[in-house]
Amino acid sequence: MFHVLVIDDDTSFVRLLEKRLKSFIEDLSIYHFSSLAEVRAFLKTETKESFQLVFLDQHLPDGSGIDLLREGWFENLAVISVSSDDAPDMPGENVKAGAMYFLNKINLTEPLFKPLVCGILDRNKIQQEMSDIKLNTARMETVKTLVSTLRHEINNPLGAVLGAAYLLKNSSDLKEDQKEAARLVESSGKRIKHVLDELCKAISLEPVSKAEQRVFHIPGDKPWE
Amino acid sequence: MFHVLVIDDDTSFVRLLEKRLKSFIEDLSIYHFSSLAEVRAFLKTETKESFQLVFLDQHLPDGSGIDLLREGWFENLAVISVSSDDAPDMPGENVKAGAMYFLNKINLTEPLFKPLVCGILDRNKIQQEMSDIKLNTARMETVKTLVSTLRHEINNPLGAVLGAAYLLKNSSDLKEDQKEAARLVESSGKRIKHVLDELCKAISLEPVSKAEQRVFHIPGDKPWE
Repeated sequence: MFHVLVIDDDTSFVRLLEKRLKSFIEDLSIYHFSSLAEVRAFLKTETKESFQLVFLDQHLPDGSGIDLLREGWFENLAVISVSSDDAPDMPGENVKAGAMYFLNKINLTEPLFKPLVCGILDRNKIQQEMSDIKLNTARMETVKTLVSTLRHEINNPLGAVLGAAYLLKNSSDLKEDQKEAARLVESSGKRIKHVLDELCKAISLEPVSKAEQRVFHIPGDKPWE
Repeated sequence: MFHVLVIDDDTSFVRLLEKRLKSFIEDLSIYHFSSLAEVRAFLKTETKESFQLVFLDQHLPDGSGIDLLREGWFENLAVISVSSDDAPDMPGENVKAGAMYFLNKINLTEPLFKPLVCGILDRNKIQQEMSDIKLNTARMETVKTLVSTLRHEINNPLGAVLGAAYLLKNSSDLKEDQKEAARLVESSGKRIKHVLDELCKAISLEPVSKAEQRVFHIPGDKPWE
């Protein structure tokens, strides 16, 4: 089901729009509202994933459609603002407020309508995908940087902990409770090492030399040499 | 200086465009190219930050302007595709390929031109800013999640290391080299604690209860209870 939100109080335009959209969109379902108040009430109960395309008229009984754009209801959605008014400021204002395109209502019956709507939908999908990829890349790079930093900062003192624990554990002249304490140091140190190793494995961290590593500087420490 | 890239072999249109843009953009500077080959050569030497707006004609001597969009030269840039051709597929194809808008060349002399260009520039700036905010938020959330995980996973074994080291250090019957080993365990353990504490401080991690924490699961471990 392809859901389109149409916000317009001109019912004959809405009927025509539905007919045009049905000619190239299968399983079309239209949510139609005639005032800003109705749309706001609807949007409060719906998630943005409920529909894929918005047609937004400008002159509504209780205000202008551009208000909904400015209120941020349609972030990441393909919004096409429409009007029968050809006020020269309207297309620019709507694009600035977040519409992907502005159409005069007469464009509805022109041959450009179908390919333009399809192009807008395709573009919006591509934009969302690119945005998701960028976010995931940023997350992965951050994890790599942080884990790489931690591995460097923690591995040296951890090596000292494990080395000293090994020496103590193998001293022949320790009492049993002291050996037990040394074993506890060793097992706890290995546990910390395991956590770091698994994190490194999980992010497939390639071994890189210190000079090439991007790391967070631990506050209060001297910078690396 | 506001730099505009104009790709069009119709020099009278370019002169008119320059005149129109100058009427509302101060310090305008135009890079003008008449063929795809010239633009590609130019773009290879320039960074995208060199210009703020692109006008892209469709019919060029060595191909169509839309090819440049598809080749990905203009990612994140405000591109306005233009043509004197009113082929109905052209606006949709250009939007899909990444143009923010499509204008017929006759729109240049219409009153909507200035507010539309300004709206497109404003929108592109807002989009870039929102994208930067999203990326930074994703980075910060990732760091918080990871540090929070590490603090949980490492703090317990680290507490055991420090406790056992304290007991050993204060045993009256240890030999000096054994005490030295215990002191090394303690100082190294404190070093690890310092690294974790500073990271937590650096990200202003609020203390949150285990049940509310978002954490990474360390592979090979049992899930938290």
